[in-house]
Amino acid sequence: MLYFQSDYSQGAHPQVMEALIQSNLEHTEGYGLDDHCRRASEMIQELTGDPNCHVHMMVGGTPCNVTLIAASLKPYESIISARTGHSYFHETGAVEATGHRIIAMEGIDGKLTPDLIDLAWKEYEDEHTPLPRLVSISQPTEIGTIYSKAEMTALSQKCRQKNLLLYVDGARLGCALTCQANDLTLQELAQLCDAFYIGGTKNGALFGEALVIRNAAINDHFRWMIKRQCGLLAKGRLIGVQFEALLEGGTESLYFKIASHANEMASILRGSLTELGIPFYSDSPTNQIFPILPVPLVKQLRRDVSFHEWAPEKDSRIPIRLVTAWGTQPSDIQALLTAIRKLL
Amino acid sequence: MLYFQSDYSQGAHPQVMEALIQSNLEHTEGYGLDDHCRRASEMIQELTGDPNCHVHMMVGGTPCNVTLIAASLKPYESIISARTGHSYFHETGAVEATGHRIIAMEGIDGKLTPDLIDLAWKEYEDEHTPLPRLVSISQPTEIGTIYSKAEMTALSQKCRQKNLLLYVDGARLGCALTCQANDLTLQELAQLCDAFYIGGTKNGALFGEALVIRNAAINDHFRWMIKRQCGLLAKGRLIGVQFEALLEGGTESLYFKIASHANEMASILRGSLTELGIPFYSDSPTNQIFPILPVPLVKQLRRDVSFHEWAPEKDSRIPIRLVTAWGTQPSDIQALLTAIRKLL
Amino acid sequence: MLYFQSDYSQGAHPQVMEALIQSNLEHTEGYGLDDHCRRASEMIQELTGDPNCHVHMMVGGTPCNVTLIAASLKPYESIISARTGHSYFHETGAVEATGHRIIAMEGIDGKLTPDLIDLAWKEYEDEHTPLPRLVSISQPTEIGTIYSKAEMTALSQKCRQKNLLLYVDGARLGCALTCQANDLTLQELAQLCDAFYIGGTKNGALFGEALVIRNAAINDHFRWMIKRQCGLLAKGRLIGVQFEALLEGGTESLYFKIASHANEMASILRGSLTELGIPFYSDSPTNQIFPILPVPLVKQLRRDVSFHEWAPEKDSRIPIRLVTAWGTQPSDIQALLTAIRKLL
Amino acid sequence: MLYFQSDYSQGAHPQVMEALIQSNLEHTEGYGLDDHCRRASEMIQELTGDPNCHVHMMVGGTPCNVTLIAASLKPYESIISARTGHSYFHETGAVEATGHRIIAMEGIDGKLTPDLIDLAWKEYEDEHTPLPRLVSISQPTEIGTIYSKAEMTALSQKCRQKNLLLYVDGARLGCALTCQANDLTLQELAQLCDAFYIGGTKNGALFGEALVIRNAAINDHFRWMIKRQCGLLAKGRLIGVQFEALLEGGTESLYFKIASHANEMASILRGSLTELGIPFYSDSPTNQIFPILPVPLVKQLRRDVSFHEWAPEKDSRIPIRLVTAWGTQPSDIQALLTAIRKLL
Repeated sequence: MLYFQSDYSQGAHPQVMEALIQSNLEHTEGYGLDDHCRRASEMIQELTGDPNCHVHMMVGGTPCNVTLIAASLKPYESIISARTGHSYFHETGAVEATGHRIIAMEGIDGKLTPDLIDLAWKEYEDEHTPLPRLVSISQPTEIGTIYSKAEMTALSQKCRQKNLLLYVDGARLGCALTCQANDLTLQELAQLCDAFYIGGTKNGALFGEALVIRNAAINDHFRWMIKRQCGLLAKGRLIGVQFEALLEGGTESLYFKIASHANEMASILRGSLTELGIPFYSDSPTNQIFPILPVPLVKQLRRDVSFHEWAPEKDSRIPIRLVTAWGTQPSDIQALLTAIRKLL
Repeated sequence: MLYFQSDYSQGAHPQVMEALIQSNLEHTEGYGLDDHCRRASEMIQELTGDPNCHVHMMVGGTPCNVTLIAASLKPYESIISARTGHSYFHETGAVEATGHRIIAMEGIDGKLTPDLIDLAWKEYEDEHTPLPRLVSISQPTEIGTIYSKAEMTALSQKCRQKNLLLYVDGARLGCALTCQANDLTLQELAQLCDAFYIGGTKNGALFGEALVIRNAAINDHFRWMIKRQCGLLAKGRLIGVQFEALLEGGTESLYFKIASHANEMASILRGSLTELGIPFYSDSPTNQIFPILPVPLVKQLRRDVSFHEWAPEKDSRIPIRLVTAWGTQPSDIQALLTAIRKLL
Repeated sequence: MLYFQSDYSQGAHPQVMEALIQSNLEHTEGYGLDDHCRRASEMIQELTGDPNCHVHMMVGGTPCNVTLIAASLKPYESIISARTGHSYFHETGAVEATGHRIIAMEGIDGKLTPDLIDLAWKEYEDEHTPLPRLVSISQPTEIGTIYSKAEMTALSQKCRQKNLLLYVDGARLGCALTCQANDLTLQELAQLCDAFYIGGTKNGALFGEALVIRNAAINDHFRWMIKRQCGLLAKGRLIGVQFEALLEGGTESLYFKIASHANEMASILRGSLTELGIPFYSDSPTNQIFPILPVPLVKQLRRDVSFHEWAPEKDSRIPIRLVTAWGTQPSDIQALLTAIRKLL
Repeated sequence: MLYFQSDYSQGAHPQVMEALIQSNLEHTEGYGLDDHCRRASEMIQELTGDPNCHVHMMVGGTPCNVTLIAASLKPYESIISARTGHSYFHETGAVEATGHRIIAMEGIDGKLTPDLIDLAWKEYEDEHTPLPRLVSISQPTEIGTIYSKAEMTALSQKCRQKNLLLYVDGARLGCALTCQANDLTLQELAQLCDAFYIGGTKNGALFGEALVIRNAAINDHFRWMIKRQCGLLAKGRLIGVQFEALLEGGTESLYFKIASHANEMASILRGSLTELGIPFYSDSPTNQIFPILPVPLVKQLRRDVSFHEWAPEKDSRIPIRLVTAWGTQPSDIQALLTAIRKLL
């Protein structure tokens, strides 16, 4: 079986696993108050170029999104997201469970734009309407596209003009930062937003994400919020240990090598499928690609390949999602291509 | 000043006021457990043709919508509404405050359709997405249009097919039922939905709405829900007294006369404005009409007439909302028409 | 039948009703943005001696308590209340519905003390425990007792020392302020707390309470909070009209006369019952008294008198609650005493 | 440094770690829909003797408690817990964050009793009070005590009589089941309650708990609830893998050996401290013991030993908590005893 269904189908990258093994018998404080978490946080402060940012080691992406949003808003405030954005699309209403509306906008290439912010804003009038206060985006988006430096800057400016906080879900941030199309550095991203997270689960960790809060107001009593939102891990150091292993070496660290590798594997696949004349659902330069394939091919491909059907059938074709990760080998790519060529 | 801003700018219809005065010194049980509420409920059971439906005397429309929805849903379930629907548009996120998403759809003439339900349903996949469970509509809609018997029947069938509850906000239900374009009786409406409310505030009461629940499962411990959602009035009998006065005489009662009068006033206005060549924002047969007027005229009209600008300026014209009510006199209509003619 | 069950069994005091009748045909802005609400607010600013306090005309006591608390707290903060306090005891969890814990303490004579605050505070440790932030009390308490000036001052100082907001539920505030045992003025009360409400429903109004917020931070976007908590009345002016009628004349106004009358009626009753050797459940100087009567007497008294059994039977006796109000006549008191004497 | 602060200061038991290493490169479905989770669930169904119970692999104890409670209750329902119970005491209001009250009772030896349930029930009257619906206890309790078979049976019967669900937090369930004082089997426990969890974090796992739901009504759409409460782990198999390793061999499995070892270590410590004449805060037969030590001794002991001060100083003595775990060695116990003897 060839695995292209997700970037979280295997355990941890062997170097991350090794760090967990090495530290296993240590005794530390619980709940993330240990030296591993402290060092990992410092590494992140250095990487983002902001020694004053606050870093929290979080169990997963949903706890990041929900806790950050719940901590940022007053009860009558709302969120703006693309309809395909993770907070809206794939959290089972966990954000609304904290009492806040998400205004869902039809994104463009999976992205929000300043014009879409203005459009969402039109729903706001006065005390009869919730007050938009936070814009939630993903980098890369759920369909693999990325915000360019110019796009992110324009969005950030629109947010500041409208008194909106900007939050970036970075579940696959490594892939955005290391893809060839990218022109936005981590430091620049950090400066343009109020908070974001550096995803571990989908980039070599067993689990865990590093939430970076640059806006001190949001960080007030944030650990109380993490606990209240069910996200405080007893052996919190596990996340710190993993991020130490992932980020050792800074810009030359395993974290970026893993992401780069995943992008490269996807890039080879994309190139070969393009040569075969196969169209794509989105113009993704990162580790998720969405070829649109004939229905019979998709059905037959299922026998040997694990993948996700992304959208409903249209004109006898279906967009599927192929995801690469640290464990994807060049031979997996070639085997997949061989299988597709045979079925075309 | 001419008042066309809302149908709740005056107090109660004099007959309703008289009933409050007559009963003022009575001693009764609190919280709606009195004979006035009981009698009003029975009158409503008779009017709807369902002796088993449950009726609750509610303080206002928001408490109706929010309590009904919160009582109907499990935590992971969501609501489908038109983006212009009251639950989404004008409740300051009070529904989301109870932890539920509203999937906002672009309505057609302010209405939901079976196709829009199917479209909303596409957001649902599995445990990663909230489960749609209730469709919330208004009759008439916020832009004055009404669901025909065929439309309501189709919507109801789609809901049953999808295991969706159907709830109807009837803030101006009297105007829907009594307008010339209507072909849907109160009994038919009741049979097609799980719950609805008969609006009092906008049809002659000081305040108060009668919430009718036909689905017994929703009604379980409903009084606990009303209290928890801040909606249980100490002197609950006040609402019962008002509905007794409004509904005495059944289909010939004050409630329908008031609504009919408001419709007739709006109808005269609509006809005359149409003759003047003025276009409308919606094809409303009820007591709210939305003429699209030139911007300078709107500005000047403000000096003598109170009204609401409904949507942003477009091509130098603005849709305004003119609302008629029990207190609107034919002379008010003529004065308004004179004012508009003068400014055209 | 003699009515001593509650102070909300009748409609409005005739002078309040008259004000509603007089203003009934006026056209005004909705949602409390009218001149009646404005004037009533100014009257209250003057009465409290704080021209900068914010006044909101609220539909009822539960909306006051819940909206005020929800607007005051961050998600991880909690409330301290007596176990018999209204927010805890009789709101069906409406406060917890907004996501906050109430730490319920066994009050002393229905009251909280600085020591009880300290005791509640012991539940607080760190990010694993909610942070107490607001103390909720009633003046008078649910068992009719009142905080003396010294007690309220001590509580207020403890709150400020602990960074706790102090909120006073004044459903029967008139009776506290006008009872003989009272030594705390309205101005002093206002200065000692962050917010309180002046109850209308139980002191002559059809419905409505005036919520007074002295702490500007709590008042931020408060109207959004009222709407979100289902408490914004369309014809909001109704509450303003009633408070104008109640408060016209300031300290000599109907509001205080009504309260004084209720206290006087209760006082006569208390004196006569004491003479009969009947003990009381609480030492209440206000309009609720709690004689402890033999079970057979209570059962027989029910035939002619409406009242509430307050606590479970103990030693063959039951404490009952007798409540007086603006409509209670001296003849009612005499008839009740006659009935009790006959049964003793 | 000697570590007696918690049973989660180290990583995983080496055999659990080994299982994670062995399975690390496998590709599996995400979110707990894999064979490891399936097998672990089956092992638990067998252990509990209930092939129909539903098992969910959860990230931690707070997600277990909060998700189970939120899934069990209607909005107006409440929970009964000891004031020292984990749901009340150490979850930062995470339960109340889902909108439900916890009625906090002063437990006896950290335990609830049928009488305390009756007492809590007295707070319930009618639609003005939340309806108690779930009793939340821990086995062992937060102070190490355990419910005997007779006590648990009596509690369970009281719950069924009152239509209350019974939920057992089993963060340290292994220690309860394997301690010498215990007379309640896992199967019996399962039959007496509606849901419970088998704690992994504090008994050899890196993280993870197995939530067992015997009441099918609670299990309805439970995976939606887990996701909504932020508790669905992407690489959910990690928890399954660990429980497979822990439970392989059933009643002879590592899980019970670990717990037994921790109990034995605590037992030696308890015996020796008793011989030294040191009193205890609770009569705990499990892996947490609470000797009450002189303040100066506690201060000096801190230099070499890590532990938690449990309660405030009283009569110049402080109860401290000493916790043993799978990693506690007999030499650690002897070293601790030596340190204490030296300071006495």
